[in-house]
Amino acid sequence: MRIGIIGSGAVGSLFAAHLAGLDDIETWIYDVSHAHVDAINANGLRLTGVGEVHSRPRATTDPGELPALDFGIVATKGMHTGSAIAATAAAFADGAVCSVQNGIGNEEVIAEHVPRVIRGTTFPAGRVLEPGVVQWDTAGKTWIGPFEPQPATMEQVEALAEALTRSGMETLALADARGAQWTKLIFNAASNALCSLTRMPHGRAARHEHVRWVMDGVIAEGKAVADALGVEMDQDPADLLEGSIEVALDHKPSMLQDVLAERPTEIDQLNGGIVRFGEDHGIDTPLNRAAWSLVKGLEASWTL
Amino acid sequence: MRIGIIGSGAVGSLFAAHLAGLDDIETWIYDVSHAHVDAINANGLRLTGVGEVHSRPRATTDPGELPALDFGIVATKGMHTGSAIAATAAAFADGAVCSVQNGIGNEEVIAEHVPRVIRGTTFPAGRVLEPGVVQWDTAGKTWIGPFEPQPATMEQVEALAEALTRSGMETLALADARGAQWTKLIFNAASNALCSLTRMPHGRAARHEHVRWVMDGVIAEGKAVADALGVEMDQDPADLLEGSIEVALDHKPSMLQDVLAERPTEIDQLNGGIVRFGEDHGIDTPLNRAAWSLVKGLEASWTL
Repeated sequence: MRIGIIGSGAVGSLFAAHLAGLDDIETWIYDVSHAHVDAINANGLRLTGVGEVHSRPRATTDPGELPALDFGIVATKGMHTGSAIAATAAAFADGAVCSVQNGIGNEEVIAEHVPRVIRGTTFPAGRVLEPGVVQWDTAGKTWIGPFEPQPATMEQVEALAEALTRSGMETLALADARGAQWTKLIFNAASNALCSLTRMPHGRAARHEHVRWVMDGVIAEGKAVADALGVEMDQDPADLLEGSIEVALDHKPSMLQDVLAERPTEIDQLNGGIVRFGEDHGIDTPLNRAAWSLVKGLEASWTL
Repeated sequence: MRIGIIGSGAVGSLFAAHLAGLDDIETWIYDVSHAHVDAINANGLRLTGVGEVHSRPRATTDPGELPALDFGIVATKGMHTGSAIAATAAAFADGAVCSVQNGIGNEEVIAEHVPRVIRGTTFPAGRVLEPGVVQWDTAGKTWIGPFEPQPATMEQVEALAEALTRSGMETLALADARGAQWTKLIFNAASNALCSLTRMPHGRAARHEHVRWVMDGVIAEGKAVADALGVEMDQDPADLLEGSIEVALDHKPSMLQDVLAERPTEIDQLNGGIVRFGEDHGIDTPLNRAAWSLVKGLEASWTL
């Protein structure tokens, strides 16, 4: 079986490094970073932190080098989904492509370019330390299921989940993966956007009476949109938030890290996604729209 | 006539320097900054910018030095209103005290300490360049009127307006000064809070499609609260905003300057004031509450 990882930042590297450890899987990486690709081809890909992994996926910056692939795993930031899948789509003419990206709306973009799509949500996280070396900060599960309007078969979903689980990335194959995705989306929309605007770490923000009021409102709106979509969530994001305060008291969510480094954020896929799906289903989401709008303004301030 | 300026940052200094130019007014300054007070007593108070003014008010850090005063003009930041008027109240036992501070709710605090209060709103602005020297950035009018629950007489309001206008600070005496105050409050709530959260200058923020959506919402909520209070505004804050974009394209509102310098802001008197008055009158103000909450979080982030 051949699997291609599209985008090998921290999350893509976690998947690639694990899969490349399996003898029966040929693992490819497509990434636009020459430094990262060259380092991987020269010295392999190394994970350190939660676990130590060292393996040898094949990496390329040239999509023409990719062979026909059975599965794709898209792990770019949301704003690069379109260009990344457009460049690599030919390799997936007979395959199925799965998003493990943050937020909502990535599968819709992928489905414009390839025939069979898998909806996915992943919990593991980390950060690139240097080309070819990734810090693995957080372990956790991945949930995947057919993307409803343009699905891969359930057999494909199960085959991918089996390979990922066997590689060390525990993955659940679900008939409906929307519940897991919306639970994480709503949690992330509350944490990332509001931590970014207040520059507070996750747990401190959730403990701050005023900021928590906004978080609670963002979550309530998100749940109303999920309800309107008929999504049954696996967990109440409000409980997820409450349970995360102590363990992530001083954790800076990825969007806050982006803001502090003045990098484009994934706000369009988080609060922006809730706003768009809300609009489509007649649900008003003023607090998500405010958070989305203010982070868009913050991004614009860097180029004034 | 004796007039005491309580708090001589930029705005207080504009009033003090002008009044001290009049022979028939004995002008006092109370301020907690020894450096500023000492410089004024040694070299006088100097304004530069829109106009050049140099005069000699009497300045003190010791409220016990203040004589009985006919009028007070409170010009501290909102978070210092209570302590400043508590310290100086004895001087106003037979006088009337006017707020020229930003936002709403300052007169209520002043009224806890002195018998007669004047509601005020001022447009002129500047910044302290060094002790005793203030940059005068913006000219404009001041509007004053009796504070309804505990008013000065209309004769007192007119006498203060006459002295200020004669000193060069054009001031209108109104039977109801709430319209002017709420117009500026709502404009400031839209500009200051959202520029602070996005770190965009005023006009750029108002021109940014997403940020403007939040500004428009903050203004609409503010107008609903003013309506519920029975306040008739002199101008639609939305028109004021539209008209300010070009002239203040790259102007950093005072709250944004505070945020960049990590100083406490006046958010409690701006969006926080709209939220409180809205609560009292059953008007929902989610976007003002979000802006208030997020700036409170931002302030909290500086002391983590």
